[in-house]
Amino acid sequence: MNYLIVYAHPDPRSLNGSLKDRAVQALTARGHQVRVSDLYAMQFKAVADAGDFPARDPAQRLVYHRAQGEAYAASAQCDDIYEEQEKLLWADVVVLQFPLWWFTVPAILKGWLDRVMAHGFVIGVPREAGGWARYGEGRLAGRRAMLALTTGGREQQFLSRGINGDISDLLFHINHGVFHYTGMAVLEPFVAYRTARLPERLFDELADRYVARLLNAMTDTPIRFRSENGGDYTPDGIVRDDIASGVEGFAAHRLGST
Amino acid sequence: MNYLIVYAHPDPRSLNGSLKDRAVQALTARGHQVRVSDLYAMQFKAVADAGDFPARDPAQRLVYHRAQGEAYAASAQCDDIYEEQEKLLWADVVVLQFPLWWFTVPAILKGWLDRVMAHGFVIGVPREAGGWARYGEGRLAGRRAMLALTTGGREQQFLSRGINGDISDLLFHINHGVFHYTGMAVLEPFVAYRTARLPERLFDELADRYVARLLNAMTDTPIRFRSENGGDYTPDGIVRDDIASGVEGFAAHRLGST
Repeated sequence: MNYLIVYAHPDPRSLNGSLKDRAVQALTARGHQVRVSDLYAMQFKAVADAGDFPARDPAQRLVYHRAQGEAYAASAQCDDIYEEQEKLLWADVVVLQFPLWWFTVPAILKGWLDRVMAHGFVIGVPREAGGWARYGEGRLAGRRAMLALTTGGREQQFLSRGINGDISDLLFHINHGVFHYTGMAVLEPFVAYRTARLPERLFDELADRYVARLLNAMTDTPIRFRSENGGDYTPDGIVRDDIASGVEGFAAHRLGST
Repeated sequence: MNYLIVYAHPDPRSLNGSLKDRAVQALTARGHQVRVSDLYAMQFKAVADAGDFPARDPAQRLVYHRAQGEAYAASAQCDDIYEEQEKLLWADVVVLQFPLWWFTVPAILKGWLDRVMAHGFVIGVPREAGGWARYGEGRLAGRRAMLALTTGGREQQFLSRGINGDISDLLFHINHGVFHYTGMAVLEPFVAYRTARLPERLFDELADRYVARLLNAMTDTPIRFRSENGGDYTPDGIVRDDIASGVEGFAAHRLGST
């Protein structure tokens, strides 16, 4: 299989760096193809701005997503964006690997989402049957996606009633909002807790767990988010009254939530 | 009162820019002090990296939050970080204003959170009674904070069972994870929906609603998140079994959720 690991940590000597190296090594040894977008090493441009559209008339007001759509249609995106989009199209499995900062991705990885997951490419893609190909359909359909993250926090504080908030709900804006939105099947995240206190001797066990998750990426059961056009939503995009009755919030968007 | 508006939009001619200008004008006319951190205009450094610690020994592995804590303790943070922290300490009301991109803040604003909301400054601040001053206590206590955002999406798709997810839950990682964490009282967000289709003639009404929210910032009732040290959590940071029994997820962290 083809694995793309989008990796965002400022120091290769970090736990994140070691996990990424181990993953590349183990996947390659099994005959898989692996490409890594090492955003810090690449000095990936994090900020979505007018500089992304050199062909644009600067006298025009910049509506970023509209400019994205125009650049995509005119084959006038920046090279660094094309390269990342090409990697996404090449991949069978897409992994975003990062330290959890303020309960979401570091800015450089947010910038990758803002710039690479562009209008024209994965947003505003029309369906043949009408409407937009999103939330269960889309240009990245057929792929699987997984978040892999480290945090200094303790696992119990990320459980349903833990003070940091349920980790699944904290990651919903990416798992559902980006991965499911673009048509990818979403795997449960790989989360390494309390990493600042991880004894050296436990690293191998952690890395083995990570590698196992990666190797099982095509066979593990994905999170069963509802499909926008699968019959569970009203034409206005609301979960139908007779589906998951009484369930409120993010849980309503998972199949089997009744 | 003192208002800090941290504003992240790449074009001053945008709806966001107009709303920000109107806010500054109206607040100033009422005798308030207003400071704006216009992140795009400032070319604010978005990426948290080794460059934030010029005094650091590069042979040492970079653990970003640890380096932040050390720089804070040694009064060796970068000037741009000090300036933003000083504005936060000066402010009575802190507003983050932005277009919603992939269901959270644009990368440049995430970078502001990553770099300015630093260890030493608002994380790892010890309490006199033991433990850490966070989630209801902290260095920014006494201030009020509000998210102000625009989105092309329709409001109904951001309701509890709307396909994008409940907007309150999508913003929990900032409202609870950053604002409440650092001790600020959190106001309900100001959200302008479907802005791409906003007719020019409705701008005044929208701007008036925004200004009204800003003027009422000190008197509106904040979101009642539970305080970590207020008795509702176990020493491990879990909502006690006898509090909000049966309530799971983010809702468990709001008072009155039973």
